[in-house]
Order: sequence, then structure tokens, then C-alpha cells
Amino acid sequence: MAEDKKSPLPKRSEDFSAWYNEIVSRAELAEHSPVRGCMVIRPNGYGIWELMQQALDRMFKETGHQNAYFPLFIPLSFIAKEAKHVEGFAPELAIVTKGGGKDLEEPLVVRPTSETIIYSMYAKWVQSYRDLPILMNQWANVVRWEMRTRLFLRTMEFLWQEGHTAHETEQEAEEETLRMLGVYRTFMEQYLAMPVLTGLKTESERFAGALRTYSAEALMQDNKALQNGTSHNLGQNFAKVFGLQFQGRSGELEYAWNTSWGVSTRMVGGLIMTHSDDDGLVTPPRVAPLELVIVPIFKSDAEQRTVMEAAEAVFRELKAAGVRVKLDDRDSLSPGAKFFDWETKGVPLRMELGPKDVQNNSVVIVPRISLDSEEPAKPGRKQKLFIARAELAGRVRSLLEQLQTQLFENAMARREANSYRGVTDYGEMKTLVDRDAGFVYAGWCGSAECEATVKEETKATIRVIPFPEFQSATRPSHCIVCGTSSKHEVVWAKAY
Amino acid sequence: MAEDKKSPLPKRSEDFSAWYNEIVSRAELAEHSPVRGCMVIRPNGYGIWELMQQALDRMFKETGHQNAYFPLFIPLSFIAKEAKHVEGFAPELAIVTKGGGKDLEEPLVVRPTSETIIYSMYAKWVQSYRDLPILMNQWANVVRWEMRTRLFLRTMEFLWQEGHTAHETEQEAEEETLRMLGVYRTFMEQYLAMPVLTGLKTESERFAGALRTYSAEALMQDNKALQNGTSHNLGQNFAKVFGLQFQGRSGELEYAWNTSWGVSTRMVGGLIMTHSDDDGLVTPPRVAPLELVIVPIFKSDAEQRTVMEAAEAVFRELKAAGVRVKLDDRDSLSPGAKFFDWETKGVPLRMELGPKDVQNNSVVIVPRISLDSEEPAKPGRKQKLFIARAELAGRVRSLLEQLQTQLFENAMARREANSYRGVTDYGEMKTLVDRDAGFVYAGWCGSAECEATVKEETKATIRVIPFPEFQSATRPSHCIVCGTSSKHEVVWAKAY
Repeated sequence: MAEDKKSPLPKRSEDFSAWYNEIVSRAELAEHSPVRGCMVIRPNGYGIWELMQQALDRMFKETGHQNAYFPLFIPLSFIAKEAKHVEGFAPELAIVTKGGGKDLEEPLVVRPTSETIIYSMYAKWVQSYRDLPILMNQWANVVRWEMRTRLFLRTMEFLWQEGHTAHETEQEAEEETLRMLGVYRTFMEQYLAMPVLTGLKTESERFAGALRTYSAEALMQDNKALQNGTSHNLGQNFAKVFGLQFQGRSGELEYAWNTSWGVSTRMVGGLIMTHSDDDGLVTPPRVAPLELVIVPIFKSDAEQRTVMEAAEAVFRELKAAGVRVKLDDRDSLSPGAKFFDWETKGVPLRMELGPKDVQNNSVVIVPRISLDSEEPAKPGRKQKLFIARAELAGRVRSLLEQLQTQLFENAMARREANSYRGVTDYGEMKTLVDRDAGFVYAGWCGSAECEATVKEETKATIRVIPFPEFQSATRPSHCIVCGTSSKHEVVWAKAY
Repeated sequence: MAEDKKSPLPKRSEDFSAWYNEIVSRAELAEHSPVRGCMVIRPNGYGIWELMQQALDRMFKETGHQNAYFPLFIPLSFIAKEAKHVEGFAPELAIVTKGGGKDLEEPLVVRPTSETIIYSMYAKWVQSYRDLPILMNQWANVVRWEMRTRLFLRTMEFLWQEGHTAHETEQEAEEETLRMLGVYRTFMEQYLAMPVLTGLKTESERFAGALRTYSAEALMQDNKALQNGTSHNLGQNFAKVFGLQFQGRSGELEYAWNTSWGVSTRMVGGLIMTHSDDDGLVTPPRVAPLELVIVPIFKSDAEQRTVMEAAEAVFRELKAAGVRVKLDDRDSLSPGAKFFDWETKGVPLRMELGPKDVQNNSVVIVPRISLDSEEPAKPGRKQKLFIARAELAGRVRSLLEQLQTQLFENAMARREANSYRGVTDYGEMKTLVDRDAGFVYAGWCGSAECEATVKEETKATIRVIPFPEFQSATRPSHCIVCGTSSKHEVVWAKAY
């Protein structure tokens, strides 16, 4: 087991999919379970998810939301109430038919999403406009029957949060929908170091039961898009079938306006495919369970005493400074093997500490990726930073921030290099999609037919109708497919 | 709806069960869902659970545990592998038989607990004694089919944590089992302000598949016991059926020793039944989502401006000091109605702030329960504390601590007043149990027959064989049932 971990990873450029699977496995992030399609999230992977949760949870609370918890089981009849909803989810349901040794009178669905059960409860809690808005979120597991699963990216059971809100007016619901998409974008940029395109989904890509779906889309290193989070304006669709009514300001009974929004453990997969390299996982410091690992280096017993004493002092100092730090004191591995191990596992900073460093009152830090802001590495070597002990805590904090920023800039530069604007020729677009070139911006007449044609002929889909800040300076005039007048500039790509 | 909330609660002394249900409902902690037996945990209840989670999670990590996540679904054949385990859980299983529109070849159990799936994974991860111990925990939902449910106390789905560890030796496993029971006791005493008796469960009360089960038992205000958390030494039972083996120090293959331990949302029910009173919920500050609420009092517009300005300044000051504080600025309710509302909802401290207080540079604080350490209340009135603005943040922090301590002391005094030691006559014990007197300490010969006789005749069960620190100074010499020599002093009570 130790041996095969030392063979090189498959290269991204040669087999992206094998590379991804190996990183998930070697960094001990997750594993398939005995139940087909369900994954086991191991501590290294769960630690990333916990840091994501903490940041998002704080952001949700700052925007006025409270957490609650709704049941895992939903009566089958509830799912069936909203016509589009059941059409979308029926093929993916896991159904409990037996409980306590008996056949159930009404089968129970294991929640694939919780709109139906949640709005049926809101209907009991809301009487008047004074009871609105309701702003709730739940952290939960959901199940969608999937046959072709990939760890984190597409699994039968996954962990997520689902926000569910109820509002007095359509405008408030729309504002909430956009506010939460904005929270997602901020989180993805600032914590995951992932640039995302935000915008509106077309009707064919809409959430089952929504009026409008907005999405945050990221570009992976294989130039496929990943839908990283969605926010839905549900209109009054669910309010009408679950009787979510309130006495309005005029005294009349009105239906509430709902929104829902969610992100999931899929983001861990997106994180891997955005930042990692042929040496293994790369984790942005803000979601790295370990930010720095100390590797002591010594030969003699005397050296060991000196080095370990210094290593422990450094460990305590950094821990006190709030750094997530580990001292790797395993005696079964050489320093080189430890370097390899922590590189594979994506720890942002590695500290090497030997007898000379102790003597010089300094340490060596090797960042997981090269930092443009620091002295460049010697050709063919890794960047090594020599840091005086007196400046340690401050420099580590600053290096972590630089690394966070650098990852975002690298990802942004890559996305921009793989974005094609002003494409007007369908043949050119086909070629671009065919060679997995990235995001293709082009005009679209707005018809489902043209959208379907492209999907059928190229496998690319419209990822979003981008928000104004992402639109090209010159808006396309014609639909790239049919050549009629363009209604929207849209972004095409193949997607996970 | 507003109206019926103002009627008095049922009294504990008259109908404890109705009192409990009304508190859960009026404090908006939880509610029944459309799925029989499944509850909706509303934000006020979930907020308590979140604070419990945060404290426990920190304690688990401080004792070396990492979080992970294992699948919701378990193959039915896994549950069946450990004979006692399946015997215990078979009647309570919810079973998925359909997925993705098809009948499943092997039905999937919705996890009632995760020993089987987790140890089957550990078996893949452990090769040598160097891979041990494994110290993991998961926060998850579990399902046990229940027909007679009570919100928080007994529900079909509940939220919990389950720790699962694997060790090289029996002794290490036993130490872990006791360490985590100790963590639970510390948590329950320091955060929930609940005194608990800890000790060993008898064989008949053991977890299905365990070698030994230890428990933390609390006494509710109706003098029934609540099992508030358990820790199990599983021996090698699961290791043997799932092939969890490792190469030991001698080079031989050995089976690992496992432990598991869990606490759940049931603790929220225990919290209610320990501290609350006929005015509503009482929450220990350390797990109170809101620690202090500010109720501004004014008549004229001029007064309103003065008071609201001061109230907002106080709010900001306390928030900056880390107090979980809310300013109740609802204009639809009178101050009296707000007092009633927050009392029902169990907020530890209420601040009343009127024009005179602003003038005097002081505030009035009314603690949810009387504090022995402060000036007593006037007869028939609530305790009112006058606090200078300059001392506010420090005094609030100190009052919260006093309230936390006072709740623990009150609960401890109540438990001790309702504990009966040195009971040697079975008739006396029957009388005590019959009038719900509390914990009865008595001798037991160790036979399952005597235990069963008492259960049948009185409905009392042996809650624990208490640890030495809880044992009576004089140990009983004879079994209270059969009169033969006593093997253990045990604690009897009726239980939830």
C-alpha cells in the first residue's frame, strides 16, 4: 500500500479522469462504499467540507438566515403535487416501502430536495404578511438515484445545504435569489479561489418547479464547466400547491413567493479540478484542514534533540497564532517521503527544519505552488523561502494569504485564456467545443430548438446567460445557430 | 394564534406530559411533520442543538478525533452479520426497496446506527498496528422505526453524533469508552447544567452487539430517568464479522477492538425537562441561542427616540462583547407581551430599558430564574437587578455565568432530594417507585431474573451500576429482590 502511493500520478494532460480519481484516493479524501453510488468522505475530505460549511454558515447568518431541520422522508404524494417537480425528480427517487417490519400504506421518498416538505410546513406558520419573510437554511443529506457516479461530483447521496425562503412579493423573492447567488460567488472566489460566471439558466436547464434558476459556473482544468451552485426563484408554484397563503396588507389572501438555493459536497470535486496539479492535491489555505506541516530533519541523536525542540517551539508558536499546523514526527518515514506525502495531500505550506536552520535561527518554507510575489525558484527546483524565526508567524500568515490570492489569479488567468468571445461562426464553435477549448461566448436567438441542436451536435450546453459584468463589450448580433437576431449572449461549454 | 399563546401553560405538577408538549410548541422548538414520527426542528430548537454540537465537536477534536461521513444506506446483509445487532435492530428498520424506478436486488436499510458500514470500511484501511488507533466521529441523521413518538425524546428520525474507534488492545478500547463517557459527563454538567449519574449498564440494557455499555443518566423533574448518552466497548464482535484485522507487534494477525458512543437531539428534550418551569422554557446560557433580549419601554415619540438610541448602543456594546443578544423592536407588541414571549422561549436574561433608566445611566435586568448570589426579589415579584451602564458588559457576562451555575445547582439539589440510598426493603422500594420518587439505590445479586421481576412488578429498570464516586458510603449487603448476597449497588428508576 505504501509502495503504490509512491508511483507518479497519472498526468492531467493524458488522462484527466484517472488523475482526478487518483488524487481523491491518494489524498484520502473519499472512497466508494459497499453501497453503489454512495461515498465515504474520509477525514481529509470532510475537513475541507467543514471549513466550507463554517464560512457559508457565517455568511448565511449575516444575511439574516436561521438554520432548521426538516425530515429525511417525504410522502410520495407530496412530490407529486407540483407537476414539473415530480417530472424532474421521479426517475431519481429512492423509496422506502417497509418500516418496522410492515409494508407502508404510503411509500416514503428519501428527500432528493426539500421544497415540498418545507413549504407544507411554512403554510402552517404563516398567517399574515407580518410573518414574512421566512429565511431558513438546512444542512442535510439528500439522495438522487444515479447510476454513473463520480466521487464528490455525482453521487447518489450527497451532503448539501438548502436555503428556503418565503416572501411577500415577487420582487423580494427575486432580490433574495440574486443575493444568495452573490453570497455563493463571494464564497467561491474568496474561499475556494474559484472564479465563477454567474447568470441565468435557460428554460431547459431550470430547476424542476422554478420560475427562474441562476447558477455559478466554474471552468475546470479540462475545460469542462462545473455547475457549482444554484439559486432559484420558485415563484408561487409551490405556494399554490401547498396552500402557503397569507393575509396581505390589503386584507386579501395572497400566495407567498419562494426561493431555494443550494451548494453541495460537489464543490470539493470542483476544488480539486480547479487547483490540483500532477504532484497531487492543491488546497486553498482558507479551506485547508492543515495549512502548514513541519517536517523535522536530522541525522544524529544530538541533532534530533535540537531539531525536535525547535520544531515543537515553532509548532506551539504557530498554533497560538491560529495557524492550522501539524508537526510530522513519524519516525517510520524519511523527510523525502514526508514531503511527497504532504504534497500529494495538498497542504499549502511545508516547513523544513534541520540543524542548520536551528543554528541560523531560521526556517525553510516550501509553498505548494510557486508564489509570484516571492523570490523565484532556481531552475528545475521548488521555491524555497528562508524565513527568520523572529518573523515567523507574521510571514506564515502572509504567505497563506499570498497563496490564496495566487490560486485565484492562476485560475482566473486560465479561465480567461480558455474563454472565446465574439465567436460568430457555428463551424468555429463546433471546432472549439470539439477540442474542449473552454467557454464559448456566442449569440443565441432564445429558441429551445437552437439550444437542442447544439447540444445534440456538440454535447455543449448553455451554461448561463451571463450577468452584465460578464458580457462581452460588443454584444453578438446574430444567433450562432440559426443566424436570426440574437436575444442574448450566452456561454456554451461541455459540462460535468 | 397569538391569543392561545397567552393562556397559561399546563402545570408540571398536574400534567407533566402536556406541559412538556406545550413548551416545545410555544417556544417554537419543534413540531410534528406530515410524516408520522418525524419531527421538524424549528430554528429555536435547532439553535440549541447547534451550540451543543459546537461544544461537543471541540471536545471530540481535543481528544484526538476527526470527523468523517459514511453512507445513509446500509446493505441489509451487513446488519444481519452480527447476531445480537440484527436481533436488536431488525424490528426498527426502515427499508428502501425501490430506487431509480426499479426494484432493488438487495434492499437497503436506512441507517439506525453505523457500526456495520463503518467497520467494513475500517477493515480496508487497517493493515498494521501502526494504522491504529482510528478515532472518528460522524454527525448524522439516523432512523429507527418508532410508533410511540415524543418530540426530541423519541422520534423516528433523529440527529446525533456517533463516534467509532478501532484499537490495538482491549485495554485501549476500554480507556476510550470511559474517556468519551467522561467527555459526555463534562459536557452535560458544564454546558447543559445537567448532573448525570455515570456507570455500567446491565446485560439486558446493553447496546445490541456490545461487550459493555456505559451510560450517563439524568433525573427529570417528574423523577423519571433519561438516558442522555451512551458509550460502548464493542469488544471484537464487529471486527470479527467484518474482518477488521491487523498485523500485530508480534507479526500475528489480530482483530481490532472497537468502541462507539453517541448523543442525540434527545438531549434537547432532557434539557427542557430538567430546567424549565411553569412559565415556559429555561435554557442554560451556554446553549442558549439568545442569551439576552433588550425590551425598550416608552410612551411618547420623544421617549421612543431616547430609549431606542440607548437600546441600540447597548445592543452594539453587548454584541461586541460576544453576548448573543437581540433588540426586540417589534412595534406590534406591548412590553408586557414581549416579557411573556421571551419568558416562554427561555431567554436567560431580559433587559428592560425605559426613559428613567436612560436618565440614570443604568438598565434593569431580570434573570429567567432567581439567582441566589444576587439581591432577592420582593415577595411575589421577579428578581430585578439594577446595573450601571458603565459595568454592563462585565455584569452581563457574570450574570450569565451565575445563571449557568445556579441551574446546575438547582438540578443537583433536586436530584439529591429525590435520591434514596440504603433502601433494603423491596416493599419500600415498590412504594418509592410507585410514587415516582426518583433514583432508588439498592443491592442487586446480579441475576437477570431479579432484574426482570422488578421491571415487571414496578416498571423500574436498573439505570446503571454506578461508578465508585456515585456509590453510597455503606454498600448494600443483600439483593433487594431475592435477599441473597449483593453483587452491586444499582440505581433503579422508571425511565423515558
